[in-house]
Amino acid sequence: MAELYLEDLKAGDVFESGGHLVTEAEIVEFARRYDPQPFHLDRAAAEKSLFRGLAASGWLTAAITMKLYVAGMRLAQGSIGLGIDDLRWLKPVRPGDTLKARSEVLSIRSSRSKPGRGIARVRTVTTNQKGEAVQSFVATVLVWARPKTGN
Amino acid sequence: MAELYLEDLKAGDVFESGGHLVTEAEIVEFARRYDPQPFHLDRAAAEKSLFRGLAASGWLTAAITMKLYVAGMRLAQGSIGLGIDDLRWLKPVRPGDTLKARSEVLSIRSSRSKPGRGIARVRTVTTNQKGEAVQSFVATVLVWARPKTGN
Repeated sequence: MAELYLEDLKAGDVFESGGHLVTEAEIVEFARRYDPQPFHLDRAAAEKSLFRGLAASGWLTAAITMKLYVAGMRLAQGSIGLGIDDLRWLKPVRPGDTLKARSEVLSIRSSRSKPGRGIARVRTVTTNQKGEAVQSFVATVLVWARPKTGN
Repeated sequence: MAELYLEDLKAGDVFESGGHLVTEAEIVEFARRYDPQPFHLDRAAAEKSLFRGLAASGWLTAAITMKLYVAGMRLAQGSIGLGIDDLRWLKPVRPGDTLKARSEVLSIRSSRSKPGRGIARVRTVTTNQKGEAVQSFVATVLVWARPKTGN
């Protein structure tokens, strides 16, 4: 797949990712390191929580979404995020869920201050195998202009 | 440390975390799984990138911040995030950096629709050992009211 420059992208472009199977082991391992709360760590404790069963840390869902996004929308020189807006965790992610990400370019413009660079706003919605949205956010990402060839 | 209920919190309350040393191994391992881009994976490739050296995935910085936050601000029944606004990655996080998180309650209110629950908005700024802010976000989190005792 060709790498994408500023000139290759326009508002409305959509990128669909492959799938990522979320296992109980991945949920628990991530939680041990970064979000050690009972409803992310332990089935029995999770049953008694608001989640009524083991649920992935929202930050694991975000990390998996990044993995899916970078494989699906290949920006030249990589995807460098400046920030995220409107990150919402809409439904719990469970062991056995298969997540996919759908990214849509909302807007794109050349940088005013830095020639050769642009800024894109990209909404990424993460869904499970039932097609339910589990997470949504809008990322602001750096995009590079295609290098000029010749002299 | 006592666990915090809705009644224990007010706007302006501040929670400071301990520190987390970020190693090259952690940066590379997280990147392999969730953000496999050269500037997060490989020192030599990273030198040639915009980052001019190995830098942590922003999502790793967010995950480490969650770890620091849950240890520092102990909400009763755990911290359940509904969403994140204004997440900004302000400076690269490097191998050897020690990160800390400072969380400030911006606002807190009882839920209108769900008795016994409230909603807090909490700004968390993550800093490195030089005191430079590397990341900032505002989380919307569920907070539980203290259970009524007696009949």
